[in-house]
Amino acid sequence: MSSINTAYSQLPPAFFFTRLNDTVSAYADAHPDRRLLRLGVGDVKGPLAPVIIDALHRAVDEQAQAASFHGYLPEVGTAFFREAVARHYGRWSVDVSPEEVFASSGAADDLGAIGNLFSSWARVLVVEPAYPAYVDTNVMAGRQIVRLLGTRENGFLPLPTEELDGDIVYLCSPNNPTGAAYTRSQLQRWVDWANDRQAILIFDAAYEAFVQDGDVPRSIFELSGARTCAIEICSLSKTAGFTGMRLGYTLVPRDLVRAGLSLREMWVKDRTTRTNGVSYVLQRAGAAALSPEGMDQCRQAIRRYQQNGRILSETLTRAGRWFTGGRNAPYLWLPCPEGKSGWDFFRELLEKAQIVVTPGEGFGQGGEGYVRLSCFGTREDTEAAARGLLTVLR
Amino acid sequence: MSSINTAYSQLPPAFFFTRLNDTVSAYADAHPDRRLLRLGVGDVKGPLAPVIIDALHRAVDEQAQAASFHGYLPEVGTAFFREAVARHYGRWSVDVSPEEVFASSGAADDLGAIGNLFSSWARVLVVEPAYPAYVDTNVMAGRQIVRLLGTRENGFLPLPTEELDGDIVYLCSPNNPTGAAYTRSQLQRWVDWANDRQAILIFDAAYEAFVQDGDVPRSIFELSGARTCAIEICSLSKTAGFTGMRLGYTLVPRDLVRAGLSLREMWVKDRTTRTNGVSYVLQRAGAAALSPEGMDQCRQAIRRYQQNGRILSETLTRAGRWFTGGRNAPYLWLPCPEGKSGWDFFRELLEKAQIVVTPGEGFGQGGEGYVRLSCFGTREDTEAAARGLLTVLR
Repeated sequence: MSSINTAYSQLPPAFFFTRLNDTVSAYADAHPDRRLLRLGVGDVKGPLAPVIIDALHRAVDEQAQAASFHGYLPEVGTAFFREAVARHYGRWSVDVSPEEVFASSGAADDLGAIGNLFSSWARVLVVEPAYPAYVDTNVMAGRQIVRLLGTRENGFLPLPTEELDGDIVYLCSPNNPTGAAYTRSQLQRWVDWANDRQAILIFDAAYEAFVQDGDVPRSIFELSGARTCAIEICSLSKTAGFTGMRLGYTLVPRDLVRAGLSLREMWVKDRTTRTNGVSYVLQRAGAAALSPEGMDQCRQAIRRYQQNGRILSETLTRAGRWFTGGRNAPYLWLPCPEGKSGWDFFRELLEKAQIVVTPGEGFGQGGEGYVRLSCFGTREDTEAAARGLLTVLR
Repeated sequence: MSSINTAYSQLPPAFFFTRLNDTVSAYADAHPDRRLLRLGVGDVKGPLAPVIIDALHRAVDEQAQAASFHGYLPEVGTAFFREAVARHYGRWSVDVSPEEVFASSGAADDLGAIGNLFSSWARVLVVEPAYPAYVDTNVMAGRQIVRLLGTRENGFLPLPTEELDGDIVYLCSPNNPTGAAYTRSQLQRWVDWANDRQAILIFDAAYEAFVQDGDVPRSIFELSGARTCAIEICSLSKTAGFTGMRLGYTLVPRDLVRAGLSLREMWVKDRTTRTNGVSYVLQRAGAAALSPEGMDQCRQAIRRYQQNGRILSETLTRAGRWFTGGRNAPYLWLPCPEGKSGWDFFRELLEKAQIVVTPGEGFGQGGEGYVRLSCFGTREDTEAAARGLLTVLR
């Protein structure tokens, strides 16, 4: 038996977004005169909010003096950052203790590491279409993947049934890529199902800041019973524009116990063994972002993205198209016209209207025949793209 | 079979350094009048060098403007950082291509993740005493650990024999905790042994900046044949005082192929799946640290630590004690007098002379009966500790 993890060769040869970027670059190089309207990869536009910039400069200045210099930090996160996250949750009445909060270098990093806690026999249930790492990290670990598909019929919000089985379940709401978001009563069904079976929900809350509707939970821990069945992984990437800064947090409640083991204590062990924590400077920036003043400033950017969501939603409605998202998430999810594949419609939009979208095929099963539109473009690009979309779709 | 990774319960209940810190805190609380001379945990004193501080402020200012804002970055590292690392190696004639360099959030993080590349059947050979994560991360992954022990007889620099077996070998030189460093000809024996058996060396080069002797390699890639058998994991923690900043790099050469798979390509897959890269701001700081001007400034701090190493070495020599380290590494490794355990001698030094050291037991087999002295204290503390040591040891 090989000492090399040959499961890596089961992954596609290049990560989907790399391939996508290469295609777009080739088009841009061939048509230097055409301006691309980028509603593809979900990156923020920046800049960081003033209160974050101030906190960063101050933290850097601390590192410039021996008296205020910070060396090694707690691997699980600094007290000030963990408390800032706990207060953030407290603002919408979710009771989280700082000891249940773990600083991370971003949601992607903790999604990449959380599988450490599970054995290779764990059956992984992924609600697809989905962020590809849910599947790929588990393929790399040799785990069996079971899929539950979002469809037009279930509004891309599939619910568990009695027969459904799985030890670990990845849920993302508000969802990337579909923009759909579970309501409180829908999410409660997942929590109840997990508690019934001793399954664990890995809840990706990266888009919580975009929630507008009162009946859409921002955290799995708004649901009764979630503390005994869920881990929440979140990020400041979309909340505060940290895609290039890299900071997030993971919540592992004390009440989550399986096989007699506290998952929170396991995660403490994992972090103290596998990391030396997250940069002091970044944690200061994160605490500033999560302060009331920081959140006020960050919300200005989020409102701009939400306005883009309204522009795109109105356009698709005007074109008479069914779609999901655009309201509680910065994505819209659109079936391709005339049974086209996502890649074909992606190319059509690129060539006819210079709109860059993301083919649904990048998000696993159930993504074929759809494209994802992002709300992270500039207002100008979004408006131009809306006009182009209307022309192509009519 | 459990869906939970029960291997975690095979780890000791708390990470060694947590326990150590608690003991020292309890002593400090009980004796508020006594000044502790901290030669324990290997943390730097700071501050960061001016050229690094300037780079940080500039990078933060870039994030304050939409026009210069950086969002998502290549998961493997930015071109400017990878090139800065390649140039750093080029300065002592090690030929590394930027594509073989991967940015990390520190050596600890990549030591925590590199095991992903190996199957659970891989036999792991650890040269102990050692940094505990080499063993613990592999215990967590359910791998079989084989130990090769450093002893007074082999100067804590054990060499491979014909019979020795293992698929992955962790080597750290200059070494933490012993301060011993392999010479070129010794390290060449490890490289030849690994190539003979298709084993892979995981070479921890975190202390390369402390090397003073011309026949001690700073990189495994100074050795002929290393490109077909080694991965190097390095850090800016000790080189540039980044313990609280969190930035490192890992080198995976193109020529490293096993079971028909390129480990470099596997690591690209791993990083693109499991991370969204390292902070732009930190990578700018790292590139500044690795510039010729940055290295000049960082060397001032390293020279201070090296001077501490001389003070402690002279003291132990004066006391007629055998020890390793203190010259090419910021640690000294000392057998405890009268057959005491490391923990007992640690307590004796704390109570009689208020010197904080690290009991050798924290570094696995072969550590029992030794203590580690760190050179990262202030000059004043180091001189006071030297006087105290002399009294206790005589």
